[in-house]
Amino acid sequence: MAGGVTRLVQGGVTSAQGFLASGVHCGIKPQRKDLALVFSSVPAAVAGVFTTNKVKAAPVLIDMERIRSGQGRAVLLNSGNANACTGEQGMRDAREMGHLTAETLEVPEDLVYVCSTGPIGIPLPMDAIRRGIPEAVRLLGPDGNAAAEAILTTDTVPKAAAVQVTIGGQVVTVGGMSKGAGMIHPSMATTLTVVTTDATAAPAMLQAALRRAADQSFNRITVDGDQSTNDTILLFANGEAGVPEITAPGEALDALQAGLNAVTLTLAKAVARDGEGATKLIEVAIAGAASDEDAQRAAFAVANSPLVKTSIHGASPNWGRVMAAVGYSGAEVNPDRLKVQIGPVVVAERGVQAGGPELLEQAGEHMAGHDVRVVVDLGLGRGEASVWTCDLSEEYVKENAGDVT
Amino acid sequence: MAGGVTRLVQGGVTSAQGFLASGVHCGIKPQRKDLALVFSSVPAAVAGVFTTNKVKAAPVLIDMERIRSGQGRAVLLNSGNANACTGEQGMRDAREMGHLTAETLEVPEDLVYVCSTGPIGIPLPMDAIRRGIPEAVRLLGPDGNAAAEAILTTDTVPKAAAVQVTIGGQVVTVGGMSKGAGMIHPSMATTLTVVTTDATAAPAMLQAALRRAADQSFNRITVDGDQSTNDTILLFANGEAGVPEITAPGEALDALQAGLNAVTLTLAKAVARDGEGATKLIEVAIAGAASDEDAQRAAFAVANSPLVKTSIHGASPNWGRVMAAVGYSGAEVNPDRLKVQIGPVVVAERGVQAGGPELLEQAGEHMAGHDVRVVVDLGLGRGEASVWTCDLSEEYVKENAGDVT
Repeated sequence: MAGGVTRLVQGGVTSAQGFLASGVHCGIKPQRKDLALVFSSVPAAVAGVFTTNKVKAAPVLIDMERIRSGQGRAVLLNSGNANACTGEQGMRDAREMGHLTAETLEVPEDLVYVCSTGPIGIPLPMDAIRRGIPEAVRLLGPDGNAAAEAILTTDTVPKAAAVQVTIGGQVVTVGGMSKGAGMIHPSMATTLTVVTTDATAAPAMLQAALRRAADQSFNRITVDGDQSTNDTILLFANGEAGVPEITAPGEALDALQAGLNAVTLTLAKAVARDGEGATKLIEVAIAGAASDEDAQRAAFAVANSPLVKTSIHGASPNWGRVMAAVGYSGAEVNPDRLKVQIGPVVVAERGVQAGGPELLEQAGEHMAGHDVRVVVDLGLGRGEASVWTCDLSEEYVKENAGDVT
Repeated sequence: MAGGVTRLVQGGVTSAQGFLASGVHCGIKPQRKDLALVFSSVPAAVAGVFTTNKVKAAPVLIDMERIRSGQGRAVLLNSGNANACTGEQGMRDAREMGHLTAETLEVPEDLVYVCSTGPIGIPLPMDAIRRGIPEAVRLLGPDGNAAAEAILTTDTVPKAAAVQVTIGGQVVTVGGMSKGAGMIHPSMATTLTVVTTDATAAPAMLQAALRRAADQSFNRITVDGDQSTNDTILLFANGEAGVPEITAPGEALDALQAGLNAVTLTLAKAVARDGEGATKLIEVAIAGAASDEDAQRAAFAVANSPLVKTSIHGASPNWGRVMAAVGYSGAEVNPDRLKVQIGPVVVAERGVQAGGPELLEQAGEHMAGHDVRVVVDLGLGRGEASVWTCDLSEEYVKENAGDVT
């Protein structure tokens, strides 16, 4: 990727100039923060990537409508309730969330976006949200931590990232926050993510850049193969760094793209690592596929296989399960050419185990760590793809067997 | 289905006349039976359905070759080792299994089939198998229980079924045995299954009938979405009931088909109920889909969703997860028309919850039982499909985190 140098910095959704955020407890959930607000002090260009699930939550439907303008000022996000499968009442509630936020912020209503996450099918507790909005507006400030905390559901840690890139000699910042946990699967956007930047670009440029960033990050992670009704990524670009608006491809767009890619990939990996019950981040890398599409098919088959994910959880180097998953992935496969590597150890070559029990022991040692890498070379062509997932633990089942908040 | 009346009877793989079986402990696994033999005392027509996984175990490759003749006498099955991803050595071992069995039984080698199930990638302990074959032949008898036991891996109970149908006034028996547990997923055959009948039919008729039976049974169950390298269904038809060979469609074939369907569906449901760590059999029935294909897509999306399966495990009537799975299934869906029923309770209608908390309580009571039924009406057309699965429990993870036998 051409363009400016990308430098990871401490920070998050408020790192770019001109962005403020807040996170409060309004009472949707007991005790924990449950309402977040991100605000741009000046009008911003906005891009969005939304769930392709045909059952879409009310806030998703509203955002998809509003984003046609390519403009925005703020996004209000709640956790503890998805406002999905809530019918007409859900649409009214989501509109009211936007309306009250716009009124309190004194900005036009159609520049305010809304996101919800949590259990499906339960009407929003609007009294709590009505109480929370003025407080969220009052507490807007330069610290993004409370906002990153307020959007969590079964996540165990807040997720934030920020990078700086150089455009035309000037420093531009891209920052963001995500929530993840269960229901992480691609075929598009995943989880709730807000990205902000003080660069700016024409809405069509911005939309294309966000789509590319999502394709190499949130569309490459999977926790359980489920896809949510609420998945949303919003990008606000307010131009406060003083760099000219990007209106055409070129070095400036490349630099912004590099920044977006770095932030979204960092956030996506943090989401995969923090999947429900997860104890490890797993990278599945496929090489030597007949095509990149085949590589992606094989990578997702391995990453979604409960048998692979549980064996990695148990640090048991069951490479046969990896080969079986590749075999049913739909990718072109010649079993006699398959090579499987776990961490630094080649455990299988030409379709059979590459050595004695000491190999498996070494592979098991790698799998006992927090970062596990499984590489499969199909030995057919030049197609390749990497995806990230987490292990499948008893904890995942426990968390999902009851009512989830 | 036209044809004779189908009557479920006690029995299994030896219920049809002229079939003998045995199951012995030869030492592949510690202590448990691990080698099974099924033998037809006269030549039989044979049909088979095999895994579509591109990584196929050695015995599958050999059976697919031998079945071209449409003839067979016996099948030797071992548990404790899949003989998959074992390269040339695996092919030699599988051939030797067949060779020794044929020699001991004094039948032509190409009429003997072999099946293996267990961990992948480990060479077969041939010494144990060489010792076991003569004993398996010596113990052949009219009781199928030991054979059904010897093919189990992580299954908790042997699975056998038998039915009687009437063809031209004469009673014909169809019986069978299966092993299942992990790696149960369709797109074709599943697990190891041997079906026997004392009717007989031209090999092409038999093959078509077995394919139809598999499509409405083993291709409609799923435990974890994984597909094995070893899945095999073999059908032996030896004609010992004295009914004329079926050579064309008609009442006789319909009666045999009804018997095959009943046996395979009974076995398939037993496999789903006994999925690894399972505590419940779940039927997912989709109605009102735009097409039968759409209905099947939606049914599998629901049945494979870890979030749905864990919520059923916890008897938590989270109907929103069912709607979300339908939404991402790829089937045509109008969220406002969705109706979800859990057992006898309609929990959601027109896309929203159909009543107050007492509804969920009633649905939860149904889910607390051992047989759970989830019905989704898409409200669009006349397409329908049912699939069977089991719940996802902590036990599944425990069983698969270590080395599986």
